[in-house]
Amino acid sequence: MKGTLPLLSHYAQQAQAKLPANVWHYLQSDAGQGAQQQCNEAGWQTHKLIPRPLQALQQPSTGCDMFGEHWAHPIMLAPVAYQTLFHVDGEIGTAVACNAQQGQMMVSSLASQPVADIVGQAQQPLWFQLYWQGDRARTEVLLHKALNAGVSAIVLTVDAPVKQALMDLPKGVSAVNLEKPLAMQALQPGQSQVFDGWMTQAPTWEDVAWLRQQCKVPLLIKGLMHVDDAKRTIALGCEGIVVSNHGGRVLDSTPAVAAILPDMVAAVDGQCKLLVDSGIRSGQDVFKALAMGADAVCIGRPYIWGLASEGAMGVAKVIRTLRDELEMTMALTGVSRLSDIRQVDLY
Amino acid sequence: MKGTLPLLSHYAQQAQAKLPANVWHYLQSDAGQGAQQQCNEAGWQTHKLIPRPLQALQQPSTGCDMFGEHWAHPIMLAPVAYQTLFHVDGEIGTAVACNAQQGQMMVSSLASQPVADIVGQAQQPLWFQLYWQGDRARTEVLLHKALNAGVSAIVLTVDAPVKQALMDLPKGVSAVNLEKPLAMQALQPGQSQVFDGWMTQAPTWEDVAWLRQQCKVPLLIKGLMHVDDAKRTIALGCEGIVVSNHGGRVLDSTPAVAAILPDMVAAVDGQCKLLVDSGIRSGQDVFKALAMGADAVCIGRPYIWGLASEGAMGVAKVIRTLRDELEMTMALTGVSRLSDIRQVDLY
Amino acid sequence: MKGTLPLLSHYAQQAQAKLPANVWHYLQSDAGQGAQQQCNEAGWQTHKLIPRPLQALQQPSTGCDMFGEHWAHPIMLAPVAYQTLFHVDGEIGTAVACNAQQGQMMVSSLASQPVADIVGQAQQPLWFQLYWQGDRARTEVLLHKALNAGVSAIVLTVDAPVKQALMDLPKGVSAVNLEKPLAMQALQPGQSQVFDGWMTQAPTWEDVAWLRQQCKVPLLIKGLMHVDDAKRTIALGCEGIVVSNHGGRVLDSTPAVAAILPDMVAAVDGQCKLLVDSGIRSGQDVFKALAMGADAVCIGRPYIWGLASEGAMGVAKVIRTLRDELEMTMALTGVSRLSDIRQVDLY
Amino acid sequence: MKGTLPLLSHYAQQAQAKLPANVWHYLQSDAGQGAQQQCNEAGWQTHKLIPRPLQALQQPSTGCDMFGEHWAHPIMLAPVAYQTLFHVDGEIGTAVACNAQQGQMMVSSLASQPVADIVGQAQQPLWFQLYWQGDRARTEVLLHKALNAGVSAIVLTVDAPVKQALMDLPKGVSAVNLEKPLAMQALQPGQSQVFDGWMTQAPTWEDVAWLRQQCKVPLLIKGLMHVDDAKRTIALGCEGIVVSNHGGRVLDSTPAVAAILPDMVAAVDGQCKLLVDSGIRSGQDVFKALAMGADAVCIGRPYIWGLASEGAMGVAKVIRTLRDELEMTMALTGVSRLSDIRQVDLY
Repeated sequence: MKGTLPLLSHYAQQAQAKLPANVWHYLQSDAGQGAQQQCNEAGWQTHKLIPRPLQALQQPSTGCDMFGEHWAHPIMLAPVAYQTLFHVDGEIGTAVACNAQQGQMMVSSLASQPVADIVGQAQQPLWFQLYWQGDRARTEVLLHKALNAGVSAIVLTVDAPVKQALMDLPKGVSAVNLEKPLAMQALQPGQSQVFDGWMTQAPTWEDVAWLRQQCKVPLLIKGLMHVDDAKRTIALGCEGIVVSNHGGRVLDSTPAVAAILPDMVAAVDGQCKLLVDSGIRSGQDVFKALAMGADAVCIGRPYIWGLASEGAMGVAKVIRTLRDELEMTMALTGVSRLSDIRQVDLY
Repeated sequence: MKGTLPLLSHYAQQAQAKLPANVWHYLQSDAGQGAQQQCNEAGWQTHKLIPRPLQALQQPSTGCDMFGEHWAHPIMLAPVAYQTLFHVDGEIGTAVACNAQQGQMMVSSLASQPVADIVGQAQQPLWFQLYWQGDRARTEVLLHKALNAGVSAIVLTVDAPVKQALMDLPKGVSAVNLEKPLAMQALQPGQSQVFDGWMTQAPTWEDVAWLRQQCKVPLLIKGLMHVDDAKRTIALGCEGIVVSNHGGRVLDSTPAVAAILPDMVAAVDGQCKLLVDSGIRSGQDVFKALAMGADAVCIGRPYIWGLASEGAMGVAKVIRTLRDELEMTMALTGVSRLSDIRQVDLY
Repeated sequence: MKGTLPLLSHYAQQAQAKLPANVWHYLQSDAGQGAQQQCNEAGWQTHKLIPRPLQALQQPSTGCDMFGEHWAHPIMLAPVAYQTLFHVDGEIGTAVACNAQQGQMMVSSLASQPVADIVGQAQQPLWFQLYWQGDRARTEVLLHKALNAGVSAIVLTVDAPVKQALMDLPKGVSAVNLEKPLAMQALQPGQSQVFDGWMTQAPTWEDVAWLRQQCKVPLLIKGLMHVDDAKRTIALGCEGIVVSNHGGRVLDSTPAVAAILPDMVAAVDGQCKLLVDSGIRSGQDVFKALAMGADAVCIGRPYIWGLASEGAMGVAKVIRTLRDELEMTMALTGVSRLSDIRQVDLY
Repeated sequence: MKGTLPLLSHYAQQAQAKLPANVWHYLQSDAGQGAQQQCNEAGWQTHKLIPRPLQALQQPSTGCDMFGEHWAHPIMLAPVAYQTLFHVDGEIGTAVACNAQQGQMMVSSLASQPVADIVGQAQQPLWFQLYWQGDRARTEVLLHKALNAGVSAIVLTVDAPVKQALMDLPKGVSAVNLEKPLAMQALQPGQSQVFDGWMTQAPTWEDVAWLRQQCKVPLLIKGLMHVDDAKRTIALGCEGIVVSNHGGRVLDSTPAVAAILPDMVAAVDGQCKLLVDSGIRSGQDVFKALAMGADAVCIGRPYIWGLASEGAMGVAKVIRTLRDELEMTMALTGVSRLSDIRQVDLY
């Protein structure tokens, strides 16, 4: 092997070079002026690792169990919309990359290829990320389309009730799994686009309770940052949460996910699975998230950098890089199992 | 709706492109070398917001009451001098923009258009910002000119006793509401321009007491940063204070307004209205100021960026952007009323 | 008055434009890589001032008493070597500027003009900065030359026992008040230039005790940063100390002077005069030093920027700027006397 | 003497100018994206020194004893691989520079010249840095080659079990003291290069115990950052440890060495020698490491900058600069002996 492990930022550079400026801007967009992503990334970097050489590893492995499935590693691909926007391989390319690297993937509600086709190419069960479709009837249609395609878990994203179009999608790229664009009631003079428009179509806790009944597979809620919300999710019988500020894309000026993660872990206290995303950029970051108590992590922009750079092959390389970095970090800190990582004290 | 909400910094870029360099420099000027404004802005950014999705909003609104008036939102335009310097629309353009966005406005003592004309164009009551005119007689003349024009509150600015001309005003731009330039006694050799010049014309606490008697409308004192001064203002019967370091334009090396606001709120303890300005650059900042206990906020440079960019239309867009951001922040944190914002714990 | 007060950094820019690169580099040089000066300056900026408007000033003045002399303001010019290197006016120009602005000045041991000529041009008593001359006999010669010239106090600089030549002096610029260059014993193989060279000619506490006996005018020790050293100086009967890290020119990685000043003030406890320098760049900084308990401050590089820019006139402008800023800061914080500044709580 | 002491960064600039880009990149490479080295350097800079002038030095000296040898100063050259890559003088040039400056040197397992030749040129005993050779038999061969060459101590580096080739070595540059390249068992599908490859050849604590038996000279373990590992090393009878994160080259996101050094010193408690490296860039840093309790320090990249710049002469100048800076720091803080440095309180 020649050269250093390719750090993920190399793929970012390649993606920027390959993508049209508006697509790159859309991919990297931040709720504020870039400070939110920096905040997320800095949150992970604040914590430090103490090397522990000379430990003999005992059958080292990055494997873990999740809802009865065996995962080769705890790195899940977060749902990213419209992947054919970045490369012709699209979501199917991402699924193929997961096959190659024993990866996991959440298919987005806004996927640009049919969910059945994506699932059909995958050699392992996929999860489906569900956006609330304005009401229960419409949401149920989308839910069943995904379940019928064979997804093994549903992830309801709740932190982005306002879905702003950040760019005009080029011809041929659309959310092919949705029935038709959401119609929004015309606003009266003096009414608010936020309060009287978007928010009237946003899901509520009652909708979560309803969804939990509709759904015979594990249901996770994605986009929680407050301990009370984590507890309420558990009380409703959900199987997991994803601690996330949506990679900094929704509300500017939120804390780094790494800053609030320990409190979230304490609130969950093992009563459901806890995943985390936003700002994870290396296998060291993955290790830190697990050391703080997460069961798994999601990555978003980094694998799209790979997709934009080299299609499915690029996604596979990104996953491989993170796996290598995670293994290296485990080796250098002397832990053999993910469950041992949780015992590590970060500095 | 296409694209992200236009962040206020976009208007800054446009304004810089349109304005002569010396006017832009005057607008952005800082008591020090720029550090004071950065300090103000950083003060707001230090505090973080925790998203609270899935909350059902209850008749959400940004409305509030102020001295018996109903305000559609808590965003007041701070007094900025010589607005025809930035755009031919001037203060009247700003007033028209307030009509369009249900805004509030403080007309400056140094307005470049007649206060009666500005008030005449407004569909809602305006406030008048009063600079002390060197003595009580001269001040009374200006006060009554404003009251006669129909303003509904007086805001005495006390933090800038030294008014340095930062640029030569172009022909046709002047403080048309003032009687004539303040004459200053010639200094004797060895006398100080500061001590023996400007400060002999500065108002004192006794002048505030006198003014409180002259003024049948609410009187606010603008430019307070010390809790003892807030208490003394209340003891004199004033109806409000504006916590402010004048946007960093007067004394270099003061704390960020956000840093001292909690103590000011505690000192006021609801006994008068508390507004705040200096460094507010987004609806998130507005939200944070209210969460710390302010009743309303003022913005200065940002709406002048809009005025310089597109005249009245630009001011309206800036107000709209802030309103949208405030509504979005309320929606994403699950609060329906300004009074509920105050219960939110910032992170 | 048009435009802002000229901030001192403007003179730095002018000086850099006028001076040969090597002279500018010598002037600005730092023991490390520039971090020490930044550290000094940041130390002052850390502290913040709370405006106190509406206070009626009571015969405001920046005057103070020092060893029986009345000073118009507490701003002393620190000893800077070889001033004809920066402008033909040299030290005499600096003295003339002090006349114009009622300033104080310490003449350097390494002055490039005769101390008697400098003192002769001054309308107020000057102080003399003494470098130890390797032994007592040589030191006594220099001391008496200064005393005979009429200086009113002696300031022994003790923090720079190693005097490195940072540049070749141009023809015509030299330390004209010194007898002849210090001869240093030739080093034996294996001997250290530092330990066996320079340090053998450095003064010790015993030398200070001796000097205190020789000297019938006030004696101050310049370059102290440790409380025990301040106490020892007092115990030896010296009349003052100058807290200083030599503007960051000698030992890299010392604390900011502002950081250690409060402890030094507490240690001195009024038993002798306490001056401070290093990193003071504005009247606000002067105010802060006095608020922390200093009796007066010294400035170095800033007045040399003025000297390089415009000769004596430039030095006068720099002093005037600092005086104006100090007066303005007093006015805006509502204090009338230097003794009142000490009661101000910095934020 | 003219000009400032040449700071080490000057040599970095020269080396960058002289070296091919890929060699420079290899030399400066960091486990992450440069943040780890900055973290190391910043760790030392955080601590500050208080000058203590006027102290009479008592036979000042930087000398110390190490395993019965007398060292003129506590600055050891860390093992750096393939030194002919940087200059034709190679490791022999480094050894000659040590002769000139009474320096100490650890010869790398990956030296590009025969260890016997390097030792043969040295006028003082050299140490040998040992990389584990995959198994005990191979390691023993290398150990005895070094001992036979006459090295006086063995330093086992344990923090880099994964040795990635960061560049293709040019023809003629190789690890001439190794038997032959380490063969690694071919990986089966699904096996991990890290876990099933490199780590199977990494040393363990049992190997350290074995090595301690094989080795009749002092044995130090290099690359420890955890107090428990320091204690275990002592319990195994080793004579010293080198606290190090390998200059930031191995695991990204470790703490600065300066941050953990005090705990390591406390754990060792004088039971063995404690050296430290990573990020030391000046004599002030050396002083600080000793003040925290280290017995000596190692430097890596800085002397290679010198080697690349001017061969053996450049290495000598780098050592001389550090010695001068250390002596100056001692002189200015008033301490005469290394043992006195340990009593100094850093600020």
